[in-house]
Amino acid sequence: MPTYTAPTKDMQFILHEVLNVSGSDIPGYDEMDRDTTQAILDEAAKLSENVLAPLNKVGDEQGCTLENGVVRTPEGFKAAYDQMREGGWIGLDCDPEYGGQGMPYLMNSAVSEMFVSANMAFNMYQGLSHGAISAIQTHGSPEQKAKFLPNMIEGKWSGTMNLTEPHCGTDLGLIRTKAEPQDDGSYKITGSKIWISAGEHDMTDNIIHLVLAKAPGGGEGTKGISLFIVPKFMVNEDGSLGERNAVSCGGLEHKMGINGNATCVMNYDGATGYLIGEMHKGMRAMFTMMNEARIGVGLQGYAQGAVAYQNALGFARERLQGREVTGVKNPDGPADPIIVHPDVRRNLLMQKSFVEGARAFAFWGAQMIDAAHRKGDKEADNMVSLLTPVIKGFLTDKGFETTVLAQQTLGGSGFTKEWGLEQFVRDARITMIYEGTNGIQSLDLVGRKLAMNGGKTIMAFFDMVKTFIKENEGNEALKAGFLNPLKKASKDLQAAGMYFMQNGMKNPHNALAGSYDFMHLFGHVCLGLVWSQMAKAAYASLESGTGDQEFYKTKIETGRFYMARQLPATALHLSRIETGADTVMTLEAANF
Amino acid sequence: MPTYTAPTKDMQFILHEVLNVSGSDIPGYDEMDRDTTQAILDEAAKLSENVLAPLNKVGDEQGCTLENGVVRTPEGFKAAYDQMREGGWIGLDCDPEYGGQGMPYLMNSAVSEMFVSANMAFNMYQGLSHGAISAIQTHGSPEQKAKFLPNMIEGKWSGTMNLTEPHCGTDLGLIRTKAEPQDDGSYKITGSKIWISAGEHDMTDNIIHLVLAKAPGGGEGTKGISLFIVPKFMVNEDGSLGERNAVSCGGLEHKMGINGNATCVMNYDGATGYLIGEMHKGMRAMFTMMNEARIGVGLQGYAQGAVAYQNALGFARERLQGREVTGVKNPDGPADPIIVHPDVRRNLLMQKSFVEGARAFAFWGAQMIDAAHRKGDKEADNMVSLLTPVIKGFLTDKGFETTVLAQQTLGGSGFTKEWGLEQFVRDARITMIYEGTNGIQSLDLVGRKLAMNGGKTIMAFFDMVKTFIKENEGNEALKAGFLNPLKKASKDLQAAGMYFMQNGMKNPHNALAGSYDFMHLFGHVCLGLVWSQMAKAAYASLESGTGDQEFYKTKIETGRFYMARQLPATALHLSRIETGADTVMTLEAANF
Repeated sequence: MPTYTAPTKDMQFILHEVLNVSGSDIPGYDEMDRDTTQAILDEAAKLSENVLAPLNKVGDEQGCTLENGVVRTPEGFKAAYDQMREGGWIGLDCDPEYGGQGMPYLMNSAVSEMFVSANMAFNMYQGLSHGAISAIQTHGSPEQKAKFLPNMIEGKWSGTMNLTEPHCGTDLGLIRTKAEPQDDGSYKITGSKIWISAGEHDMTDNIIHLVLAKAPGGGEGTKGISLFIVPKFMVNEDGSLGERNAVSCGGLEHKMGINGNATCVMNYDGATGYLIGEMHKGMRAMFTMMNEARIGVGLQGYAQGAVAYQNALGFARERLQGREVTGVKNPDGPADPIIVHPDVRRNLLMQKSFVEGARAFAFWGAQMIDAAHRKGDKEADNMVSLLTPVIKGFLTDKGFETTVLAQQTLGGSGFTKEWGLEQFVRDARITMIYEGTNGIQSLDLVGRKLAMNGGKTIMAFFDMVKTFIKENEGNEALKAGFLNPLKKASKDLQAAGMYFMQNGMKNPHNALAGSYDFMHLFGHVCLGLVWSQMAKAAYASLESGTGDQEFYKTKIETGRFYMARQLPATALHLSRIETGADTVMTLEAANF
Repeated sequence: MPTYTAPTKDMQFILHEVLNVSGSDIPGYDEMDRDTTQAILDEAAKLSENVLAPLNKVGDEQGCTLENGVVRTPEGFKAAYDQMREGGWIGLDCDPEYGGQGMPYLMNSAVSEMFVSANMAFNMYQGLSHGAISAIQTHGSPEQKAKFLPNMIEGKWSGTMNLTEPHCGTDLGLIRTKAEPQDDGSYKITGSKIWISAGEHDMTDNIIHLVLAKAPGGGEGTKGISLFIVPKFMVNEDGSLGERNAVSCGGLEHKMGINGNATCVMNYDGATGYLIGEMHKGMRAMFTMMNEARIGVGLQGYAQGAVAYQNALGFARERLQGREVTGVKNPDGPADPIIVHPDVRRNLLMQKSFVEGARAFAFWGAQMIDAAHRKGDKEADNMVSLLTPVIKGFLTDKGFETTVLAQQTLGGSGFTKEWGLEQFVRDARITMIYEGTNGIQSLDLVGRKLAMNGGKTIMAFFDMVKTFIKENEGNEALKAGFLNPLKKASKDLQAAGMYFMQNGMKNPHNALAGSYDFMHLFGHVCLGLVWSQMAKAAYASLESGTGDQEFYKTKIETGRFYMARQLPATALHLSRIETGADTVMTLEAANF
């Protein structure tokens, strides 16, 4: 069975030596000194390692069952959920006014990485709640907040997001769920929603559904959509639970992975709902939560890679097979551990260098979310909007790839259920799909984000990279291994952007046929940047002679691997982009 | 539920217009005229589409069960197996002297692709038999052949290969299974083997196990290994079945995929075995079968990609979502089919251009096997030996990737069991692992095959590419889209080989740290070559105005996509290779 050890040391390095959180002027960050963050991470680590991780396989094997409308979660999930509630983890970054702990989103991200690595299917129950909490917090009336938030933030109630219908996922303008206004100001919601994660389960007293539906008088397509709160049990004036609402789970999806999470068909049969936010502005309400939700999925992607890597590494150190080609390394054993072999090391370093870079990238994104929300930093808000599809798309594609590489390290054992690596692969796979497929992320990036603010945000990104390189040019240690490859990669990204500018206007296909490659190109440059930042910090600590010197050396070597072996992919992506629409748009659909 | 349509048209194109089989001087090929191959392919298509494909999901869901030593295969497998037997498919390319049909290995490959696409887990039962038949055919005594082959070729009995033990897979020198000589010339075999595909099942009257074991007097490591025939039921002089041998299935593996195939722990408790081939030369006997087995696995890889692509394409044509950015394509519907979107087309073309290239590559490899075996063509034998690790490693890595891309085309539906795409992903995953992991393939390629015959074979490969380019330089249609990119890619491959020559001698790590990238670089050049050959044939048919003109145009466009969008990966692989051992070998194992 796989094991999990929370990477608190690496997290502390990023928080304090790379992002310098306690020195930041983002409100609330001043409290995040080393001891405080260490204490939080240690507590989350305990819960992850001892409670959640052992339930990961149980959840996969048992899955969820639906009987007479009741969904049963796997053995032990309810007890673990109660522990999570009691620890106050569900409201970690929520508004203290409603019972939250008021921590930065960044801390919540670090903690979430652990929870997801330990048990992704389990953590989705509270993860989805978190999205619903954000929606009510941002768009709810004072009455709605008071009515729903305290119990949701405490974890007594959970929440869901209901978007997809059988005939539409990406194209939400096509939804058919109807909202009929009632005399008392409420609405009757009727329709069927699918793929609703945690739509029904046995862990909380109530479930607060947020549902996209069409009320009369809106325009065609997405313009007619509004967002509604539909509780499973009606909530009385005094806060007690009333009668059951006309919403029910009509079926569970049988899936490739995340079996411990109930993916539900939800039927609304004239269920009572309450408008949240402005009428016919439901899509806008959804979009304001999207950055957070998508960064959360990006985090899931690399978090699965992280735990898979740990287990691959453990195997590679133990498994004896063959001899190191230049000389025996384990003379007392029948063979050497396979970690001596160059190709096994290459494979492990592909995993390690991605995971650690991804962690820094995601944490940086979370910090920008905090800057935007807590400080009103408009530039950070723009930057994180630009980077959100990259964090989601690139980190989940590469996170999945990492689980596949880790599985490969184990050879035949990786294919067996016994060793558990195959579950990481199956669970990670969904992250490339939900919360907008990665293809959709790439369209968002190229079709909307590049042009936002008249292109000023992408220019600000390039400036940031340029400035970093310039400011550190005197750092000889950093130059060859980091700054030079970063400069090269960044040039590739600029050239791709230039190609879109020059060719996308006359024919948008020229840009859209390259959107996916652009997303990956961008992701590599971001990881190249954060690796350079991490290397700079590590070199500084090496010079000052403080801290764990082996840790810093390892950090630099791992970064050098990324820059030498992974970053050069930018040239390939650029070359594909520059072929434009040619070869992609020629074939008739009938001839594929 | 997914569907399958056998690609007989594409197969005929490769057989006759690219490989020109009936014009070849390989003995037996003269009978392979268009009508004959069409008839064979059509029959295999019927069996695949109507019998095997509908059982694919059944096999996945039911899996195999072990009770009191008896393994039950999924419902319908036995009946399908009987149909396969009665059709004579099991002995299609086997020796007519023992009841085989004597067809070329190439025809068997084409037929196998269909069987594998339709139902990989099912086809493994006869696939493994095929390996055992080859072993006995090549290394068995006349008595052994007469005793075992007729029933195996007819499919009344099946066969297995027993190599792996719990503590060793790749490093077979470590095996512990013992063979003790008996007075009657037989051996008592004792030991435990794991991951034995089709080790026990209910489809045949007898199972003939081929087992690697150590007999006294051999050297250390692989030198002491011999190969033994161990029948499940003893075979009497008159051919009837005798008593049960002391071999039994001790357990079934629970796996990520190929659930319809029984992966067994096999226990040999002093079972009676018979030496096959020379004493202490068991490894050599295994190796002579390895090219075929590995090409067979490469075929499995792209065959899973092929069926996944078909189903992704079907979905992309049906699913209505969004509008084509430059203008509505389906004005009568609520949205356009997603195949209109550039990124969906890019994804589909990644799949299509790989699958069709892979098919041509695998068929070419099979043709060389025939040339080697039927004509004694030493050069073909060498060339296919060189290319075998590329066919196995590259086609399975990319085949798996293709199933993942296909799954992505379906968005959320791709993650559900209902649509079946996720099964192709899970089934394809094993092909990167078994029959030697792809890491091992890359070591075989760089560590052994490059240097074989003093490097003459790799030089012959380069000459072949060069000659093709030179001979067709006058073909303007071919030049820009095919010959130029092929030349560039081939130069990258040569540069990589040169790097190994110059740097691998002084430090083998410089070569081994790049072996995996070299395998992929090589694979791309091979697909670039076969795509150029296919394009040449298609252009010729377009010019002559014969045949299905749309087919040829599509072939050329698909090839242009490969050359423009996939082949440039060679430069990335070269750049990684040229970083050598640096960054791969520096870290201590303790610091990963």
